Amino acid sequence: MTNPARVERSSADLSPDADLLPSVAARHACRTGMAWSTAGVAKGFVQGNLAILPEKLAASFHRFCQLNPKPCPIIGISDVGDPRIPALGIDLDIRTDVPRYCVWRDGEVVEEPTDIMAHWRDDLVAFVLGCSFSFEEALLAEDLPIRHIERDVRVPMYRTNIACNPSGPFAGPMVVSMRPFKPADAIRAVQVTSRFPAVHGAPVHLGHPHSIGIADIAKPDYGDAVPVADDEIPVFWACGVTPQAVIAAAKLSFAITHAPGLMLVTDLKNKQLAVL
Amino acid sequence: MTNPARVERSSADLSPDADLLPSVAARHACRTGMAWSTAGVAKGFVQGNLAILPEKLAASFHRFCQLNPKPCPIIGISDVGDPRIPALGIDLDIRTDVPRYCVWRDGEVVEEPTDIMAHWRDDLVAFVLGCSFSFEEALLAEDLPIRHIERDVRVPMYRTNIACNPSGPFAGPMVVSMRPFKPADAIRAVQVTSRFPAVHGAPVHLGHPHSIGIADIAKPDYGDAVPVADDEIPVFWACGVTPQAVIAAAKLSFAITHAPGLMLVTDLKNKQLAVL
Repeated sequence: MTNPARVERSSADLSPDADLLPSVAARHACRTGMAWSTAGVAKGFVQGNLAILPEKLAASFHRFCQLNPKPCPIIGISDVGDPRIPALGIDLDIRTDVPRYCVWRDGEVVEEPTDIMAHWRDDLVAFVLGCSFSFEEALLAEDLPIRHIERDVRVPMYRTNIACNPSGPFAGPMVVSMRPFKPADAIRAVQVTSRFPAVHGAPVHLGHPHSIGIADIAKPDYGDAVPVADDEIPVFWACGVTPQAVIAAAKLSFAITHAPGLMLVTDLKNKQLAVL
Repeated sequence: MTNPARVERSSADLSPDADLLPSVAARHACRTGMAWSTAGVAKGFVQGNLAILPEKLAASFHRFCQLNPKPCPIIGISDVGDPRIPALGIDLDIRTDVPRYCVWRDGEVVEEPTDIMAHWRDDLVAFVLGCSFSFEEALLAEDLPIRHIERDVRVPMYRTNIACNPSGPFAGPMVVSMRPFKPADAIRAVQVTSRFPAVHGAPVHLGHPHSIGIADIAKPDYGDAVPVADDEIPVFWACGVTPQAVIAAAKLSFAITHAPGLMLVTDLKNKQLAVL
């Protein structure tokens, strides 16, 4: 469970060595106690959602991601039983380098440790999926205002009536995140995020929340509500919380994910993910 | 004025010579009497809006187009007094190759001839601007349904409260065309049309007609109304009718345009206009 002493550390601990990449420094900080949100950490570097599953479920989950690339864009996979993912960071250790984990048993979170050394097994496979922090950086670079960042709250997220394509035990609704924009900015946001399919890409919906099963935009299923003005359009992107909702719905006997908002920081640069 | 005998000709007259490009055949047909809409004529070839102005106004109008590239994307300009535009078609004669023209005097259409041989002057400059037919072809190729084409009516067009950037006597509101889409199709339509900046490019607005000064979506200022369903989003593109509205507002002593929907067919291919 949480070690309160670790949570107390300040962000001043993040970069003890000026020679390290900011992403490497962030992972080292996680190893030595950083257990808070990675929003704004190691700017410019790709952060990832995490799903760790036993090998016997990994093929089904891999196919689930393949079938649902907008909510589940894979940016890295470990070998079976190997906690390293060199493509995302030479020294990366998936057991220690995320600030906080959720350990799932029978579809419930039973523990939220800051490392998973005690849970690691030779049959586990780690999947790292793209995250909206990357496209939000691109939106901000275009001077498109992001409401939940302005308000310093979590992005609002909603379960929808859009069914994911099922694979084995993995099935369920797509979860989406929402950002309100003026119409011309919504059009620009479609263009900007279309360049980044590895981090959810273009929106999946805009304008009619009821059409995708969202009864009340003021009541997100995850994260925090933000206001949508009368002259704005709510724009919805596929969300990396989808696999967590699917893992919960499948009542898997065992799985590990990151704690929402406390992501894996990789050595990839966001700008490397642009397809054009 | 209109020669009724010419209007009676059928589209069977369009391709008398199988060796001609369809676009060349269409222009030849215009020379010999075709005086109907060019919608669907010479599929795959770029059609253009036309504005012909005296040289003393041409520099101001050219700058107006430069300042307002979404409604006024230039695809060709003649030399002063020269009725040819070889870049758009080797044999092209701007005086005869449009099905029907509007001759403007003091901001009013005073004549709608099928050629302008009697109006041509050594000081005239012809501007050809991209037209939505090109991006509609791209939308249809993506299986995105276009309501006014399904209903075989003209696209609905509206004067907005979006001010064009003025240049000399040229000033006034942007005119937009509207196509309703389901939200996911609206997002795809933004992506598809973004590839074609030479033919109006990405939409300028979606979702809130009142925000851009459209009081009643059911009452277009030009063209025909089409229904927008409750689960659809009205999507608005800058429209090539804008320069005609501006020419009318400026009450120019003399100008010539094409008649709406009766365009110049060029030898450019629509697919050549894609920027990626």
